[in-house]
Amino acid sequence: MDAASEALKKHREWQGKLETVNKMPIETADDLSIAYTPGVAAPCLEIARDPSLSYVYTGRGHTIAVISDGSAVLGLGNIGPEAGMPVMEGKCVLFKALSGLDAVPLVLDTQDTDRLVDVISALAPSFGGINLEDIAAPRCFEVERRLKEQLDIPVFHDDQHGTAIVVSAALENALKLAKKENPRIVINGAGSAGCAIARLLLDRGQKDVILVDRQGILTPDMELTSGQRALIDRLNPSGRTGTLQDALAGADVLIGVSAGHIVSQDMIRSMNEKPIVFAMANPTPEIEPEDAAAAGAYIIGTGRSDHPNQINNLLAFPGIFKGALDAGATEINDAMKQAAVSAISSCIPEEDLRPDHIIVSALTPGVADRVARAVAQAAVQSGVVRHA
Amino acid sequence: MDAASEALKKHREWQGKLETVNKMPIETADDLSIAYTPGVAAPCLEIARDPSLSYVYTGRGHTIAVISDGSAVLGLGNIGPEAGMPVMEGKCVLFKALSGLDAVPLVLDTQDTDRLVDVISALAPSFGGINLEDIAAPRCFEVERRLKEQLDIPVFHDDQHGTAIVVSAALENALKLAKKENPRIVINGAGSAGCAIARLLLDRGQKDVILVDRQGILTPDMELTSGQRALIDRLNPSGRTGTLQDALAGADVLIGVSAGHIVSQDMIRSMNEKPIVFAMANPTPEIEPEDAAAAGAYIIGTGRSDHPNQINNLLAFPGIFKGALDAGATEINDAMKQAAVSAISSCIPEEDLRPDHIIVSALTPGVADRVARAVAQAAVQSGVVRHA
Repeated sequence: MDAASEALKKHREWQGKLETVNKMPIETADDLSIAYTPGVAAPCLEIARDPSLSYVYTGRGHTIAVISDGSAVLGLGNIGPEAGMPVMEGKCVLFKALSGLDAVPLVLDTQDTDRLVDVISALAPSFGGINLEDIAAPRCFEVERRLKEQLDIPVFHDDQHGTAIVVSAALENALKLAKKENPRIVINGAGSAGCAIARLLLDRGQKDVILVDRQGILTPDMELTSGQRALIDRLNPSGRTGTLQDALAGADVLIGVSAGHIVSQDMIRSMNEKPIVFAMANPTPEIEPEDAAAAGAYIIGTGRSDHPNQINNLLAFPGIFKGALDAGATEINDAMKQAAVSAISSCIPEEDLRPDHIIVSALTPGVADRVARAVAQAAVQSGVVRHA
Repeated sequence: MDAASEALKKHREWQGKLETVNKMPIETADDLSIAYTPGVAAPCLEIARDPSLSYVYTGRGHTIAVISDGSAVLGLGNIGPEAGMPVMEGKCVLFKALSGLDAVPLVLDTQDTDRLVDVISALAPSFGGINLEDIAAPRCFEVERRLKEQLDIPVFHDDQHGTAIVVSAALENALKLAKKENPRIVINGAGSAGCAIARLLLDRGQKDVILVDRQGILTPDMELTSGQRALIDRLNPSGRTGTLQDALAGADVLIGVSAGHIVSQDMIRSMNEKPIVFAMANPTPEIEPEDAAAAGAYIIGTGRSDHPNQINNLLAFPGIFKGALDAGATEINDAMKQAAVSAISSCIPEEDLRPDHIIVSALTPGVADRVARAVAQAAVQSGVVRHA
């Protein structure tokens, strides 16, 4: 049976990948009187007196929402909210398995920016954090920005920041191994993930980052999205112009978050020595790993689990939310993202780095805890915790 | 330790009364590739082709939302969304314990009618049904009405209809036992519960129902809420006027959904022979059961678990949603509510009815299943099911 048939069969059997389970029996009138009326009035009144006690008397402090509008689901595009639900359930399952957090999958019947902000902000008192998922660019930027402004709980668009964090961690190790100090980095794909990767790499001190999309190397005179516009002055310091091919000639790193099979072996051959190639388009990478290797790529990473160096968000989001919620963080700020990068990259000691082992495997036990501790510490140090 | 302290202690220990649990392990790359990428794309694409397959490939068909705005929580009033959460979690726990349905507690940071409708309708693709809870009147009427119009999943405001169903079931048995055929029924409290009770009793064939609130017996010339206005022509056929005391003189039944200790023993004495008194204000009933008994009440019911004849919504909502979802119902219509009344009242065979045993105990095993079967059958017969 192929993977698709097997997945369909399993999803039919599961009829939902998670369930809610009670923490107490409800068998006697006494059980009822504590978990429900009349006893439940006591915690209600405590929280009414001080809403922050919702973190003490309810599940809020370990429960997040995974929310999508179904507009950019996996590589499948705008398939709508109902069709996005299997992915959101899957994400919730990963949260639970890797971080122990409870997660609730929510798909929303709107793709209007104002309404998304309105709906999600109304849901905030129910949750300790909000993971935005599979919302199309450029809507995702504004939705996240406005929610972060309005809410005092962590809001995190994983497709942007989770991807950026794991790519940064992998790249950090790859650059160490390749002994590249001032690399020229080409990011192909200038949507939400590409922009977030560029921003995080710049924030971590990279100097020469070039963003490329269908129209070629982004330059200030082009028509840019708000996400691209916010970055453009920090990009491409040597003022290159032209196509992806032009960008890659002499470059040290290619990070692909674009589409399958759009990078040729000749392009790889044109790169600087020891080229680093992260071809992360899913399910078909920008160039097949074997072809990249044959063309001389020194380090190759993809999004796929059947190749070495899988660059997978799974390494980031469970620990990031766990750390944020454990610390009582009111947001996920840049310091916390940076802490996550270092926590992930340091999972492999420098002496153990190899071209086919620059990033720890996605399901390695302990990674989420390690990330959580680092993120929680960064939250406390940067002063974004409740009762700080 | 008193109940309030015990409840606080337990709620602190629980930190949330329910958790999400995965139905499959996530330990290997194979696990990931079926529950998440790349396998998950297959059910996504199936649902994109036919959104009704969300009931096959996700948890939607057995998952409901319990939603409140925190505006009328228990008897505590408008304590806000965070403070309402312990009740919503409790309700979800009861759903799971009694019907097996998964339930997600959601408290919303708005008490605006339009915004509530907007937010809740946006959430619909995530759920198989929506239980509205503890929303203040008259807002609750319009929120429910508009959601029912807009959505093709069951929407049910339990404080109205759940209460009405269980009161009707108890009253049916009480009237049988007291051999009352054309009773005069006085409902004290004309908010959401009182109006819903009046309507359901009228729909079940009662002829003489009087609704009373603080201004006295409701009459068409008074200032009425929209819920009261919709009923007024069917009420009070003998055109009585005056106070609760006037209404009760010669009446057969008092149903109190109002406030503690506002009914006197003299009022009970003024009723017709074998008076039936449901004093359901919580936690303090309209008249203490002992006082009502001493004044000659024949059958006494309350909302409390420490007295006989507890009239508790718990008998209705788990089975009603279970039946509706099992049948694939697109709404909970009057026929389904009527079926629930009969299913609940018939839990006690006529020969077993006694004045202190007219309604089955709230936690009796099997009640929810019995109600579910009757409700599902009524849904099918009345043609409100998907693919009917």
